[in-house]
Amino acid sequence: MTTPSVRVALLGFGTVGRAVARILTERPPAGVRLTHVFVRDAARRRVDWVPGDVVWTSDVEDVFASDANVIVEVVGGRDPAGTWVRRALDSGRSVVTANKQLIAHDGPALRKLAAERRRHLRFEAAVAGGIPVIGALRDGIGGDQLVSVTGILNGTCNFILTSMAGGASFAEALKRAQDLGFAEADPTDDVEGFDARAKLAILCAVGLRVQVAPTDIATRPVTLVDAVDFRYAGSLDCTIRQISHAAIDPDRPGHVSASVRPSLVLRSSPLARADGSQNVIVARGHYGGDTVYAGAGAGGGPTSVAVVSDIAAIAAFEPERQSASPIQEATSVDSEFITAHYLRFIVKDRPGILAAIAQALAEHDINIDAVVQLPFEGKDAMPFVVTAEPCAPATLARAMAAISAMDFHVTPPVDLPVLSWGGGA
Amino acid sequence: MTTPSVRVALLGFGTVGRAVARILTERPPAGVRLTHVFVRDAARRRVDWVPGDVVWTSDVEDVFASDANVIVEVVGGRDPAGTWVRRALDSGRSVVTANKQLIAHDGPALRKLAAERRRHLRFEAAVAGGIPVIGALRDGIGGDQLVSVTGILNGTCNFILTSMAGGASFAEALKRAQDLGFAEADPTDDVEGFDARAKLAILCAVGLRVQVAPTDIATRPVTLVDAVDFRYAGSLDCTIRQISHAAIDPDRPGHVSASVRPSLVLRSSPLARADGSQNVIVARGHYGGDTVYAGAGAGGGPTSVAVVSDIAAIAAFEPERQSASPIQEATSVDSEFITAHYLRFIVKDRPGILAAIAQALAEHDINIDAVVQLPFEGKDAMPFVVTAEPCAPATLARAMAAISAMDFHVTPPVDLPVLSWGGGA
Repeated sequence: MTTPSVRVALLGFGTVGRAVARILTERPPAGVRLTHVFVRDAARRRVDWVPGDVVWTSDVEDVFASDANVIVEVVGGRDPAGTWVRRALDSGRSVVTANKQLIAHDGPALRKLAAERRRHLRFEAAVAGGIPVIGALRDGIGGDQLVSVTGILNGTCNFILTSMAGGASFAEALKRAQDLGFAEADPTDDVEGFDARAKLAILCAVGLRVQVAPTDIATRPVTLVDAVDFRYAGSLDCTIRQISHAAIDPDRPGHVSASVRPSLVLRSSPLARADGSQNVIVARGHYGGDTVYAGAGAGGGPTSVAVVSDIAAIAAFEPERQSASPIQEATSVDSEFITAHYLRFIVKDRPGILAAIAQALAEHDINIDAVVQLPFEGKDAMPFVVTAEPCAPATLARAMAAISAMDFHVTPPVDLPVLSWGGGA
Repeated sequence: MTTPSVRVALLGFGTVGRAVARILTERPPAGVRLTHVFVRDAARRRVDWVPGDVVWTSDVEDVFASDANVIVEVVGGRDPAGTWVRRALDSGRSVVTANKQLIAHDGPALRKLAAERRRHLRFEAAVAGGIPVIGALRDGIGGDQLVSVTGILNGTCNFILTSMAGGASFAEALKRAQDLGFAEADPTDDVEGFDARAKLAILCAVGLRVQVAPTDIATRPVTLVDAVDFRYAGSLDCTIRQISHAAIDPDRPGHVSASVRPSLVLRSSPLARADGSQNVIVARGHYGGDTVYAGAGAGGGPTSVAVVSDIAAIAAFEPERQSASPIQEATSVDSEFITAHYLRFIVKDRPGILAAIAQALAEHDINIDAVVQLPFEGKDAMPFVVTAEPCAPATLARAMAAISAMDFHVTPPVDLPVLSWGGGA
C-alpha cells in the first residue's frame, strides 16, 4: 500500500469535525487519508468507527511533529486556532478551515503566508456551510467582474424571521431556534449581524476582490423587527430577511458599500425563498448577470462536505494525483422513477367514463389520489384530471394502454409525472 | 513586456465568441492574452475593438502552427469542432469548449486524451450557460456522494412553458421565443428534449461519476402539454416544467435512472421558480443534502463568463502564475445604498399625525410612495406604515430624527430598506 499523497490531521472533533471524520472514513477522496485527530481529552473522545491507525492526541505538538501535510482546523475562534493555522502554513502544510472570524479578520496575512510557502489555504466551509459559493465566486464565475453580492448568510436569523413570518414572536422564535440547536445560548453574534458581517467580508474579498474589515461593515439587529412588520410587509408583497449586501462602484476604485440589516425583499425574489435555516447568495456580474446559490447554511453534514471538497481539491493538485476520481461507464440506464402521476383526459362526456378509468387503474393496483374537474363549457370535449399515487412507470404504461383503447377519448390521454421537491422520487 | 503564460486562440466568432473576445479585451484574467481568432471570412468579420496584434484567420492551420496554448472552441456541432479539439489536445494544448453535444458524446475519449497529454479540458459553458454548475458539482461539493441531479436545462422549453402558464398557446409561445432569439427556426432539439439530455449526460458524468450515452436517456416532448394542463396543475398547487432528472442507487452500481420530460412540480419547489429562459439545477448529496444553482442558461454574456472563467482556471495552474488575481484593500467603506424605505410607526392616534410626518419627509425632499394601515383595534397604540421612494440613508436619517422627536410615538419608529430583486440598488 502506497502512502497517500494527502495525510490529514483534524484539529477539533465537534459537530463538524465528527462529520469530516465520517466522510474521510466512509468515502475518502482519492489519495486522501485521515491520520490524526487532535481534541481535548482525546482518550475519552476517541470513536471506534474511525480506522485504528488514526492517531488521537490532546497534544497539538504531536500533529506538528507528524507527517500530516494538510491541517483541517474546525476548532473555531481566532485563538489558538489562528496560531495553529499560521504554524501549519509556516511549516509547509496546506490548511483547510471553517473559521469565518479568522478568515474575515486575518485572511490577507494568512493568504500572503500561504502564497509565500506555496501552500493551499482553503475555507469553503467558512461561508454558507454546504453551498459552494467561495469556489463559485472565485473560480466558477471568476472571469466576470462582480459588482455586488447579496445574501442571507445567517441561518439563525433566517429561522427566527421565517418563524415570525409564520406568527411567532421574536422571543418564541429565538427559543425554538435554541431548542433546535440553531441558536447559541447567547445569540448576540447572530442577532446583531456580527456573524453575517464576517461572512460578508470574506465574500467581498473572494468575489469583489476588495478586502474589508468586518468591523467596518454597518450592522443593525433583527430585533428591530416586530411581528406587526410582517403583516405590513405582506401587504406590500414583501417579506423581511436579514440581508447582507456589498457592492462596488467601478468609478470609485477601493470603495465598498456594505451592510447587514433586516430588509424588506419582494416575495418573488430568491432572497425571500430561503426557508428556515437555509442560506442563499445572489452574485451580480457585469458580464454574466445574476447567479443564485442556495442550500443548507450550517450543520455537520453540509459543512463537512465543504471541508472534504477543499481537501479533495488540494489532493487534485498533488503531482501524484493529476487525474480526477474515475468516472464509471453506466451498465444500465432506465427512466423508471417511482412518482405520482397526473393523468389528463379530454372526453366526449357520457355516464360511466370515470368508472371505466377507475376500474382500469384498480386492475393495475394503481390508487387514485384525486379527481379534478374545473368548470368548463360543453360536453363534446370535456377535460378532467385524475391524480394517481406513486407507482412504477411500466405499471402506469400498461394501465394507460388499456384506458387509451376505450372509445370516449377526443384526444389521446396524457400522463405526466408529479415531482416532489427537487427530485423525482 | 513578458509573454503571457496563456495565449488564447478563439475558434468561432458568433454570439459567444464575440462575448469571449469582449471580456478578453476589456478585462483579461491575469496572464491571459487573446492571440488568434479563427472564423470563416475573417477579413470581413474582423472587429476594431479587439487589440491590433490579434491574428485573424480563416485557415485553422494558422492556429495549429501558432504558439497559442489554449484553444477555445465555440463553433458547436460534433464536426469539425471535435476534430479540432482532439488535434488541440494531441498537440499539447489545453481546450475550453462550450460544445455540449461534443462533450456529452465524446467526453470520455476526450478526457482520456487530455489526461494522457496532461492538458486541461474544461467545459463549464456546455451546461447551463452562466451558472457554474460543472465546477460546483466536480469541485465545490466534490467531497459529497451525489445521489441525484435534477434541473431545468433548456431555456427555450422553460420560456415556452412559462409563457403557456401565462395563457399563451404552444404555437404563440414558440413564435415569441423565436422572435426573441431564444428558439431556433427548427426547435426540434429543444422541444423533444435532445438538447437537455446532452446536458444531463454531462451532469451524470461530472456529478454522479457515471458515463451515460445521451441517446440512452428517455425523452418526451413538451408538446404533450396543453394549455388546459396549466389550469389543472395550478389547482394542484403545481406548475409544469421540462425536468431533466438523473439518479443513482448505491445498491445498484453502474445503474442510472435518467429522463427528460415535462413534469408537474410544486410551486414551492426551486424548479418552479425558474422564469423565462432561466436554468436551475438541484444537486442532492448523501452527506450535504440539497444545493441549488440558478441563473441565465444561455446568452453571450453569461456563457462567455463560463468560458473566460475556465481560461482563468487554466492560467492559475501555470507555474508562472500560482497567485490569484490581487485583492485590493478597501480605501473606504460605507452602507450608503440608495433604496426605497419602509417606515413603521406605532402611535397614540390623534388628528394631524400623518400630516406632521408627511411634512417632515417633504422638508427633506423624500417622496411618499404609499401609506398603509391595516385593520387594527384600539387607538392607544396604532401601527401604520409609510413607504418612501428611494433616497440616501443619510437623508432618511435626518428626516427620521425630526420625526422621532414628535410627541405621538408609543414606540420609536423603525425604518427598513426595501430591496429590489437580489440587490440593494
